[in-house]
Order: sequence, then C-alpha cells, then structure tokens
Amino acid sequence: MNGQPIIVQKYGGSSVADAERIRNVARRIARRRADGTRVVVVVSAMGDTTDDLIALAQQVSSTRPAREMDALLSAGEIIASALLAMALQDIGVDAISLTGLQAGIRTDRVHSKARILNIEPRRIVDELDRGRTVIIAGFQGVTSELDVTTLGRGGSDTSAVALAIALHAAACERFTDVEGVFTTDPRIEPRARKLRDIGYEEMLELASAGSKILHPRAVELAWLYNLPVLVASSFTDAPGTLIHGGPSMEPANKARGIAHDYDVAKITIRGVPDRPGIAAALFGPLADAAISVDTIVQNASLDNLTDLTFTVAKNDLQRSLEIVRPIASDIGARDIAADTNLGKVSLVGTGMQNTPGYAARMFRTLADQGINIDLITTSEIRITVIIKESEVEKAVRALHAAFELDRED
Amino acid sequence: MNGQPIIVQKYGGSSVADAERIRNVARRIARRRADGTRVVVVVSAMGDTTDDLIALAQQVSSTRPAREMDALLSAGEIIASALLAMALQDIGVDAISLTGLQAGIRTDRVHSKARILNIEPRRIVDELDRGRTVIIAGFQGVTSELDVTTLGRGGSDTSAVALAIALHAAACERFTDVEGVFTTDPRIEPRARKLRDIGYEEMLELASAGSKILHPRAVELAWLYNLPVLVASSFTDAPGTLIHGGPSMEPANKARGIAHDYDVAKITIRGVPDRPGIAAALFGPLADAAISVDTIVQNASLDNLTDLTFTVAKNDLQRSLEIVRPIASDIGARDIAADTNLGKVSLVGTGMQNTPGYAARMFRTLADQGINIDLITTSEIRITVIIKESEVEKAVRALHAAFELDRED
Repeated sequence: MNGQPIIVQKYGGSSVADAERIRNVARRIARRRADGTRVVVVVSAMGDTTDDLIALAQQVSSTRPAREMDALLSAGEIIASALLAMALQDIGVDAISLTGLQAGIRTDRVHSKARILNIEPRRIVDELDRGRTVIIAGFQGVTSELDVTTLGRGGSDTSAVALAIALHAAACERFTDVEGVFTTDPRIEPRARKLRDIGYEEMLELASAGSKILHPRAVELAWLYNLPVLVASSFTDAPGTLIHGGPSMEPANKARGIAHDYDVAKITIRGVPDRPGIAAALFGPLADAAISVDTIVQNASLDNLTDLTFTVAKNDLQRSLEIVRPIASDIGARDIAADTNLGKVSLVGTGMQNTPGYAARMFRTLADQGINIDLITTSEIRITVIIKESEVEKAVRALHAAFELDRED
Repeated sequence: MNGQPIIVQKYGGSSVADAERIRNVARRIARRRADGTRVVVVVSAMGDTTDDLIALAQQVSSTRPAREMDALLSAGEIIASALLAMALQDIGVDAISLTGLQAGIRTDRVHSKARILNIEPRRIVDELDRGRTVIIAGFQGVTSELDVTTLGRGGSDTSAVALAIALHAAACERFTDVEGVFTTDPRIEPRARKLRDIGYEEMLELASAGSKILHPRAVELAWLYNLPVLVASSFTDAPGTLIHGGPSMEPANKARGIAHDYDVAKITIRGVPDRPGIAAALFGPLADAAISVDTIVQNASLDNLTDLTFTVAKNDLQRSLEIVRPIASDIGARDIAADTNLGKVSLVGTGMQNTPGYAARMFRTLADQGINIDLITTSEIRITVIIKESEVEKAVRALHAAFELDRED
C-alpha cells in the first residue's frame, strides 16, 4: 500500500449539497481507489450550510466576533466530512473523517482569514497506511492554543493544495459544478472551449475575474510547489483541465482565454499636483482599510497637474470615496469623479506582450464593434480594457471569435 | 476574581432552540454574573439539531458507524456554544466557547456512549482568570488519540456535573423547560407540588421514570462528590429544586413523591426448576444483549418449581423473548407468558421501609380504587407496584391525595 501514489481530491459545497450528492461523491472516490491509489479528500460544507450558520449568527450578535464565527462555521465542514466517511463505509470503502485539528493543520491566529503555518500529517499517513480513505474537513485549522481558525475565501481549495504538498501527493483534483477552465464564460459565448491544460500564471489571470474554479490563493500555492491540479466536474466524467507547469504545456505565446468582470467601480481624481508621494498618500489609507485596489492609471502630466484613476470593487466604492475625498482636498486636487457602470475584459495568454500584434488586434476588434475603451492596462500575459458594463458581453464574443479561441489547439 | 465561587450552568436543547432563546439565555447568564460569580456554561445542541443530523446520516448510511456519528453529532453542540458565546459578547459579557477537546474532557474509546476518564480544566481556569464566561459544548469529549466521542443519553447533564466537580464549583445549575422536581407528574395530578429540595437517592428513584429533569447518571455522579445541583426552568424566574445531601434537607422518613412509567413489558417464565444457576443462565444473556432488566420477582418455590417474572422496556420485549425462549426450554421450564399492557407506579421517600404503615397505606389506597396489583418490589426508599397500564393515572392521583403530597412541608 505504501508505494502507491497519493491523490488529494477536493469537493466543493455544491458537490455535497444533499444526501444523494454525498453518495454520488462516495461512488466517485471508490472508483478513484480502484487502481490502488491512496486517496485523501478535502470537503467543503454542504450547499447552504455556511450561509445558514452566518444567518443564525446575525440573529444573535451584531458584532459576530471572529473567533466564535470560526468555531461556528467549522461545524459545517465537520458535518460534511463525517457524512462522506459514513457514505464511503456504506459502500465498503474503509474511511475516516478528520477535523482540521486532527489532520494536523496549524495556522496563525488571524481568525476568519488564517494562513496555514505548517501541516503535521502523521495521523493522515497512519490512516492511509491502514488502507483507509481519509476525509478532511476543509477551510479549517487550529492555532498553537488549539483554537479553531478558518482560512477565509478559497479556504478549502487552499487546504487541499497545502495537504497535497505536505503529503507529497502526485496531484490535487478539485471537483465542483463546472467542467474545467474555459476560453471564456460559456454563458456569454456558447462556443467557449474547455482547455485541456493551462499554466499557473495564465490560470491566475483567468481566475482573477471569478474564483469559482480554483481560488487564486490555491493556484499561487500550487505554482510555488509545482503541484499539478486537475479541475473537473463532480457531476460528469468529462475530462477536466490540468493546471500545471510541466513540459506537456500547450504552445506558449498565444491567446488562451478571455476573462471578464462586472464588479468594477472607477474613481478619477482630477488635477492632482504632479509631485512625489501623492500615490502613497492616497493608496496607503485605502490599503489600511483593507480595500483592494485593482487597476491604477496615471495620465501624462500637463502643467504639472495629472489625472489619477483607479478601480475598486463596487461594494468598496462608498468607503473608498470617504477615505480619498479629504486626502484629495489636502493635496490640492481639483475634483473627484466616480463611475460604476463599468466592466473589465482581459485577453490572457503567455508571452503576449512580447508578441507584436495582439494588443492592436484586440483594440481594432473592439473599435469595429463600436466599443469605446475607457482604460487600458497590461501585464506580461494579459491585456485588460475597462469598458461600459453594457458592452462587456459583446466584447467577449467579438474577441473570442477574433482570436479563434473556439478552435482546438 | 480568583476568590469568587464558580457556578456551572447547563442549558438543554429546548432552552437554546432558536436565536431569541439563545439571547434569553445570554441575559440570564449576564444576571448570574452580576455578583461576581464566575460562570461556566454547558450547552446542548439547539432544539432539533441532533435529530436533523441523525436523519441526514440515515440518508447516506445504513450502518452509521459510531465514530463518524460522534464526529457528526458533536457539531450540534459546537454550533450552540459558539452562538451563545457571541450572544453574550453582544450584551457586553466577555465570553469564549470551547469544544469538549478544548475544555480538556478526556473519555474512553466507547463511541456513542463514552465515559469521562478525567478532565484537565487548565484552559477553562485560564479563561475564567481572564474574567471570561466559558461556554462548553456538552455531550462530547475526546479520546487520547483526539478522536471525538459523545457521552450518550444524558451526556450533557453528565458533562456539566463532571465539570462542576473538576472545577470545584459551588454548585451545578441545570436549566430546562420544567420548573423543578414535582411530587408527581403535573399533567396527571394538577395538585402536584414543586419540591424545594430533595436528596440524591430520592431524586434517582423519582427520575428513573423519566430522565428529562436530570439524567440518573448525572445524579449518581453528583451524589458521589456531594455536589449540589439546582434544577429550574430557563423560561421563568421561579425557584427550582435543589438536589443535595446537606443538613438543610427536609425531614426524612416521609413520602416525597410518586413516579410512574408506562414503558413496562412483563415476561413470566413458569415452572422453572428451583436449582442454583437458573437466574444467571437467564439474565446473563440478556445483559450481554444490552437489555436492561428492571423489576425481578421470583415466587416461592412449590414442588421444587418456581415462577420467575421480570420486566423490560416495551421496545426490548421481542428481543428478550427470542433470547429467553431457548434458555427456558433448555432448563426445562413449563412455558413463557408476556404482557405489555402494564404500568409502574412508585412511592418514593427516604427511609420508608423502616417506617411501618407506608406500604399498607399504599396497598389499601389502591384497593379502595379497585386497582389490582400485579407485582410488588421495594427498595429502602421506594415501594413500586406494577399495575394495569389503564389504571396508572388513577393510581397516581389517589396516592398523591392519600399521602397528602399537595401539602407544603
């Protein structure tokens, strides 16, 4: 048994939303074990359990202290993992559920968004050596005082990748209700094509618009340890998408997919005196308020005055304006404008910036559709435009066709 | 803070069944702390949570292995304790929830009915020393391997009493939806009177008919360590009943209450050869099958043949007959009769057996009502009769009046 490879599987909340789906997942795990593979499973809370627990907390507390919220929410994954272990035993697969504590997942003390410090997987290895499939409650760990913590957004994905690394697993397999990584959102462009594989960096850029497939934090961790991650559906047997950095990667230097995001609000500070320290004065307080600033663009200076534009999530717009207004006033800026009717579209592909013509073709395609570009930013593997929210879908479809993303590689 | 007495409170599932009741319990705890008392609270799962989790388990597993059931059910008390700690903080009471593991409750490995081996209350004491109210998930502990166990029926009551003993608490206060210990069931006899206090042994005899007030296992543990236990309602401020063995106890040697039980099935083995070892041959296999035998009566021997009668819970009747029939046949007994239309009524009071007249008055009262007595057994503080099920209520009312239990002490 000891020589067989270890696979860490992760099943999301929708995959275990009710008893029938839990039994379905148990059958999938049983099949995965058939060739002798040793399987460790990380599971999220069933369907709406976490939301239901949060609603209860809101009814008893206006403050909802983070330590107690972590203790409360950890129960959701404990329930799912125990039920899945039972369902496995019911079909003849020896299985055992472990909490984050029992699985040896140690974190820092930052409740509700803890980071994993280390994993002491002795208990997991012991149970695998006994021939058992080990089911681990995702999203949770413990501090050195044995207080329960949760890992925050994407926590179960991060649990799974971290456990795969600690167990020297051959791969991590992440199952959810989508079949893999697509060239773009199939709800917008029906010809969107599922990718057979994709590199870590491209995955990060594609995932940044919506973390449902695999949380960016988990992608970064997998990248750091070069762990292959398969993302696939728990409802079908269709092959998924392999995220990896190996030699079988598809040709680089080409467009791989189009990401989009409706959650964009823009703030423009006009007539900013062009002197050192202005950006720090503005963005320091925003960071202190835990507001994530996305795109930042500063226009060329004219008469020693410049326009500074940045985007934030729509939810953060009001707080951002409250923070920025007095600062803008202090530094002598002319005025502030805000716009929420915006969306973001990104063309992603390795090395695009080094290959002439991609940006030009992208801008021409949008112009042919009569779409006006509000802002442009680029990274090594991405060209992003901010456009009108109402034109995002049209832009996605036009770019998908222009870059022939529906064609098989 | 250190010099203040510690009180352990226990709130049952009905007391924390929804958000409003949890907030109500939080306000009660806040009042209890007002004089500086250090409060530790043991809490059960909310209302139907445990039943809901069992129903889920039944949908995924026909076998429901005990280790995984314990892991599953432990989540119910974790949820309730975290919510109660939040509700306390919301009204300005510094509070922290602890799981059975964090509270240092170590048990044996008998899942679903574990026994507490010891409690290492260091973490609890540390938190009390910080001025915090400590909320502990009842019903659960851990093995030396840190596997979660549950304590079985009456588990949260036992958690509370054991914690009170380990913490050298001044008392344990057990809150539920009944106001205390009554002279008999108020639903049968409206003149039933709540007792101000009662001894451990009397409580055990009264509670044996229904363990809703305080589980017998918890009573026995309190008795062993002479820990006073107050039972009272969490919905009113009415004074409850103090269970204790102290000097302020009400006069002994008098009737204190009447217990009854409808869950009685009788098995009579007729024509049993009167020789040593027969009882062992019968009751050993029943004990091995975990069937609890209540009353045992053996009639006087006649022609070296005797009739042996015993009672079990109605649920256990069929299995008991299956076990007993071949044994009765082996030992040459004549036949077996079973009767399920029976009930049990007990008159309870310290030292009754040493005080002439109680039994006679009991039997005369029943005779005056035309009630036929099927079996009689007695202990030092109890006289029990088995009668027709249909006559139990009449018997309870008649005895309550005959022994003037409605009168204030």
